[in-house]
Amino acid sequence: MKLQVAIDRVDLETAKRLVQQLDGVVDIIELGTSLIKDYGFLQLKKAFAGTWHSELLYDGKTIDEGVYEFEKGFDAGADILTVMAASSVDTLTKVYDVTQQRNKQIFIDLMEVNEEKIQTIQHFEHAIYGLHHSKDSESTFDAADSVAHFQATFPTIKHISVAGGIDLTTAQKLADQGIVDSVIVGSKIVKDENPLQAAQKFMEVIR
Amino acid sequence: MKLQVAIDRVDLETAKRLVQQLDGVVDIIELGTSLIKDYGFLQLKKAFAGTWHSELLYDGKTIDEGVYEFEKGFDAGADILTVMAASSVDTLTKVYDVTQQRNKQIFIDLMEVNEEKIQTIQHFEHAIYGLHHSKDSESTFDAADSVAHFQATFPTIKHISVAGGIDLTTAQKLADQGIVDSVIVGSKIVKDENPLQAAQKFMEVIR
Repeated sequence: MKLQVAIDRVDLETAKRLVQQLDGVVDIIELGTSLIKDYGFLQLKKAFAGTWHSELLYDGKTIDEGVYEFEKGFDAGADILTVMAASSVDTLTKVYDVTQQRNKQIFIDLMEVNEEKIQTIQHFEHAIYGLHHSKDSESTFDAADSVAHFQATFPTIKHISVAGGIDLTTAQKLADQGIVDSVIVGSKIVKDENPLQAAQKFMEVIR
Repeated sequence: MKLQVAIDRVDLETAKRLVQQLDGVVDIIELGTSLIKDYGFLQLKKAFAGTWHSELLYDGKTIDEGVYEFEKGFDAGADILTVMAASSVDTLTKVYDVTQQRNKQIFIDLMEVNEEKIQTIQHFEHAIYGLHHSKDSESTFDAADSVAHFQATFPTIKHISVAGGIDLTTAQKLADQGIVDSVIVGSKIVKDENPLQAAQKFMEVIR
């Protein structure tokens, strides 16, 4: 199981410092939607140019104009880009094709879609399907239960990821469960007094 | 009926030139999602600072982290910000509240949501509800028919807008129909050899 760390709602200098600390320590570094909307792909491309040891995911949350956004995101250095499952099937098909052509990865964010919609978009063989509890949602979320239910419902989907309030205990539980390819952790690492140490602790429990 | 012109998938210099030409001529100028994701709110705020004669809409297509994105978007000078109807009801409620507190406007983009979802989010009295045909969609779209059907289905919704391949004939038809508050035009104006003249023609047929 891989560890993806999400950097969000911080300024560019803080993001750069966090990347310096975490690059090569965690498997995937996510530069969140807030960084893209605050600074834009062109500025992020300059700020984060160079050799990466971790994979780089830009959480662009594409929902339309898919080819344009995916071309821009990959040009900006992304190894993995995100698209909302709530997009039209046409958008999803187009960004999946761009991703395959460029030999990169695509993450389909399942936030706020129902099982009926997922039925229509479960055929993207190499895509990562991300269970995602909205940050704004007032309801609770059990990551391991959600993952087990999802796998039982969509047994043909091979690559699953999960995000939403993941702490060390939940990460350990998900690692033991052995279903998901990756787990996404945000504040539990980046808001820690020592993000590097916090990341190392997560890496220990999931391996 | 108001005319909203969408500027999208161009570089910053082209966007500035278009704004200079169209500000005060059309009712609302939209800086599209592509400009936000390419350049970011902070850079756009600087590029488009100053007195505006038209209203400024940033098409941020918020779908999560609503309060953060809406605060940033209004701080960047927006009069109107967009949120996806596909967001959680919690996100929609939070961004609606921020908008009311700041005495601004909110545009709820109805792309790819079904009537069942709209039933749950039709109570935001001052919001603009935007019928929106995905740019990536391969299916066709009749704007006037869609608007009539929408009004019949959701008679309590007061503010409606429509986007998706709108030409002069369709704009005229929508103006005669008298249902929508605004119509959104993109390429038919900004890709014209003379965007100012094209905008003026649209303003003539809709008044």
